[in-house]
Amino acid sequence: MNHLISMRDIKAGDIEQMLLLAEKIESGKVKPDISDKVCALLFYEPSTRTIFSFDTAIKRMNGKSIIMAGVESSSVKKGETFADTISTVSQYSDLIVIRSTVEGAARYASEVSEHPIVNAGDGSNQHPSQTLLDLYSIKKTQGTLENLSIALVGDLRFGRTIHSLVYGLSHFSPTFYLVAPSHLRLPSYIRHDPALKSVNFIDSPNLAEIIPNLDIMYVTRVQKERFVDAEEYEKVKNSYQITRQLIEENNPKQSLKILHPLPRVNEITTDVDETKYAYYFQQARNGLFIRQAIISKLLGAAK
Amino acid sequence: MNHLISMRDIKAGDIEQMLLLAEKIESGKVKPDISDKVCALLFYEPSTRTIFSFDTAIKRMNGKSIIMAGVESSSVKKGETFADTISTVSQYSDLIVIRSTVEGAARYASEVSEHPIVNAGDGSNQHPSQTLLDLYSIKKTQGTLENLSIALVGDLRFGRTIHSLVYGLSHFSPTFYLVAPSHLRLPSYIRHDPALKSVNFIDSPNLAEIIPNLDIMYVTRVQKERFVDAEEYEKVKNSYQITRQLIEENNPKQSLKILHPLPRVNEITTDVDETKYAYYFQQARNGLFIRQAIISKLLGAAK
Amino acid sequence: MNHLISMRDIKAGDIEQMLLLAEKIESGKVKPDISDKVCALLFYEPSTRTIFSFDTAIKRMNGKSIIMAGVESSSVKKGETFADTISTVSQYSDLIVIRSTVEGAARYASEVSEHPIVNAGDGSNQHPSQTLLDLYSIKKTQGTLENLSIALVGDLRFGRTIHSLVYGLSHFSPTFYLVAPSHLRLPSYIRHDPALKSVNFIDSPNLAEIIPNLDIMYVTRVQKERFVDAEEYEKVKNSYQITRQLIEENNPKQSLKILHPLPRVNEITTDVDETKYAYYFQQARNGLFIRQAIISKLLGAAK
Repeated sequence: MNHLISMRDIKAGDIEQMLLLAEKIESGKVKPDISDKVCALLFYEPSTRTIFSFDTAIKRMNGKSIIMAGVESSSVKKGETFADTISTVSQYSDLIVIRSTVEGAARYASEVSEHPIVNAGDGSNQHPSQTLLDLYSIKKTQGTLENLSIALVGDLRFGRTIHSLVYGLSHFSPTFYLVAPSHLRLPSYIRHDPALKSVNFIDSPNLAEIIPNLDIMYVTRVQKERFVDAEEYEKVKNSYQITRQLIEENNPKQSLKILHPLPRVNEITTDVDETKYAYYFQQARNGLFIRQAIISKLLGAAK
Repeated sequence: MNHLISMRDIKAGDIEQMLLLAEKIESGKVKPDISDKVCALLFYEPSTRTIFSFDTAIKRMNGKSIIMAGVESSSVKKGETFADTISTVSQYSDLIVIRSTVEGAARYASEVSEHPIVNAGDGSNQHPSQTLLDLYSIKKTQGTLENLSIALVGDLRFGRTIHSLVYGLSHFSPTFYLVAPSHLRLPSYIRHDPALKSVNFIDSPNLAEIIPNLDIMYVTRVQKERFVDAEEYEKVKNSYQITRQLIEENNPKQSLKILHPLPRVNEITTDVDETKYAYYFQQARNGLFIRQAIISKLLGAAK
Repeated sequence: MNHLISMRDIKAGDIEQMLLLAEKIESGKVKPDISDKVCALLFYEPSTRTIFSFDTAIKRMNGKSIIMAGVESSSVKKGETFADTISTVSQYSDLIVIRSTVEGAARYASEVSEHPIVNAGDGSNQHPSQTLLDLYSIKKTQGTLENLSIALVGDLRFGRTIHSLVYGLSHFSPTFYLVAPSHLRLPSYIRHDPALKSVNFIDSPNLAEIIPNLDIMYVTRVQKERFVDAEEYEKVKNSYQITRQLIEENNPKQSLKILHPLPRVNEITTDVDETKYAYYFQQARNGLFIRQAIISKLLGAAK
């Protein structure tokens, strides 16, 4: 592994190895040191939360970060090509974390850069470090990745974390319950991708009825701006809201965990937070260990 | 002390202890090390100066900072609640410094966060680290905090540093001379707060006449935008301007020091800078030692 | 040397000493350590690339940076004078790197600050660290700075890197071929500066014809916004474009190197990148060693 671009590149063995490394970092058995490394965070599309997570992971390993958040003061404004920016930043730093609005940006960067590239989100395409932390959270709470039942709730069409997760879990015979408004369904090219033949998809089940089956409920935001018709939005938004009552009245497994990539708006009500099913804040914390694992692995610093 | 939210929470003994720690840090007798800590600076209302002061304090103790300046790229824009932001950032960091335009924001954050919160300003309410550095500057230059005569000059109504300072000094029997334009006077709820019964307030004295009495002259900006009537502003602005002539012609104590929380506009003329009374730049420097004291104390790193 | 403000201040001996130090830093013979220093980067005119280069240089020596990029959240907005800002920042930091749109800003800062100032660009005036890295790149590739033939191509009127370079090389008997659109020629006050009497200027040669003579071709952007007349721009822009064909068909020296301060737009076509003449990305990398040399020298940390 020279770069982390897409979950589609990563084999089951690599995933397991990465989760194992994160586990060792979390427990303190492995303490990567990257004190002689400089990592560039190039966020063409700024996101404080994701920057914080990568920046903290780097600093917890004594590494250094240089950060661009937004393109206002960058050479992009002066007409520089993306390839030239990557070539230049690659002169300064030992690894580049890149977020872009353009699909394929990270892949292209990996062809230009002399140093490892980590994709921190390219348009609605991929966000593999998020998926690895999701997988880490699933493994940690369920003890395994194999044969799990997972509801995907919310925006399954544009949510890159959903797409990455489907590919990431595809090696482990999952059952996905797809719970989404009609025009935010999982894209057909994913739903019918031959690479996903060992995945069991169950379309549009009644959410309350499937709760007893679930190991994981993975919830995402249904963004108002995805709807052409504001009325349509008002109609559907509450059908996909997770409440404490919905969970507790429908006989969940004791081990059920609710995940969310955050930020949440109102798709999970706050009364869920204090239940044992809520796991989204710990999930965010798990991001630190996974990102330490990714970066130290790519820099050859994980011993 | 688990958090630093308001001067009203802090007892005289705690203040003295904090100033003593700052003194030991300044002299090099105590060298706190927080190299394994990450501090988040969440500045909803950005301020380069205050960020620099906290960031430098953290880095001089080998700590690490992650910084949000402004909300443009934050989850706030996506509709996340303040409580969720704090819960998430609290997963990444060991301490959170927060500045907000909303009164009570830091207090609320302290109820949500698992880690210490430092209030770096909440609206026109409190700014306790500024007050502690003011008290440190007073102690350092006067040898004591007890029984001092202090003129408060400028905007006493909206200036949170003024409000915090009044509470901070209230334990030490001060006399405050209140020198302000008529509609920028100290709010009545502070002026008559029973908690301030040992404070001696003297209203609207002639500034020139009281100069011989003063140990400290604390000056703040009179902001044009506080005036509904531009003519009114023009009329009063010079009445509250401190010049070298004003000081020197009015028989000041040799130990008089002029403080200002900075930035200054024209309320102290630059010819004062080279006099021995000017202390505002050293005061800014004192902020480093106080902020090191606060942070290392809250992180349990001050030995 | 207490500050780095302008190439006009720097003697030949100082230049050579600085390049030697950069060389030792690059080879690892000298490893400056500034782990107890805080450097402020004050970029009134933000530039991600230049911030990255200084920030990386600082961090590769284990130093700490505090960064202001743009004045939006600064005290400038509240009416603070530049002198007060420098006085205050000088309380927090051990060295200040400053970029401003105002000519002379860095010089003025050096008169106010207690600590070393590094000019990272003041308007269209000077950008000495860029020039030192250019000189380092020239020395590294040509083995000497003496008696070289250098084409200056593009905007010679507003390009501060061009102006600084002319002064920097003036100690070493260079020949400059000046290749520029008619109204972007080298200013007369530089062209005829008595201080440059040992410099050989050759005006407006045919670029193809002089290629065999060149040791260095230094190319800069011709910015559209410098032209009042858009048609005029369209007419000239291609006359100053460097292509692989132009170079290879005109019998260049094997040791010719093409430099560019970056970012490039289209004044060097990308097919040049893979030739042995292209040196602009390595040139950017050389900036790290020069900036380490400058900062460690000014901080007295280069042993």
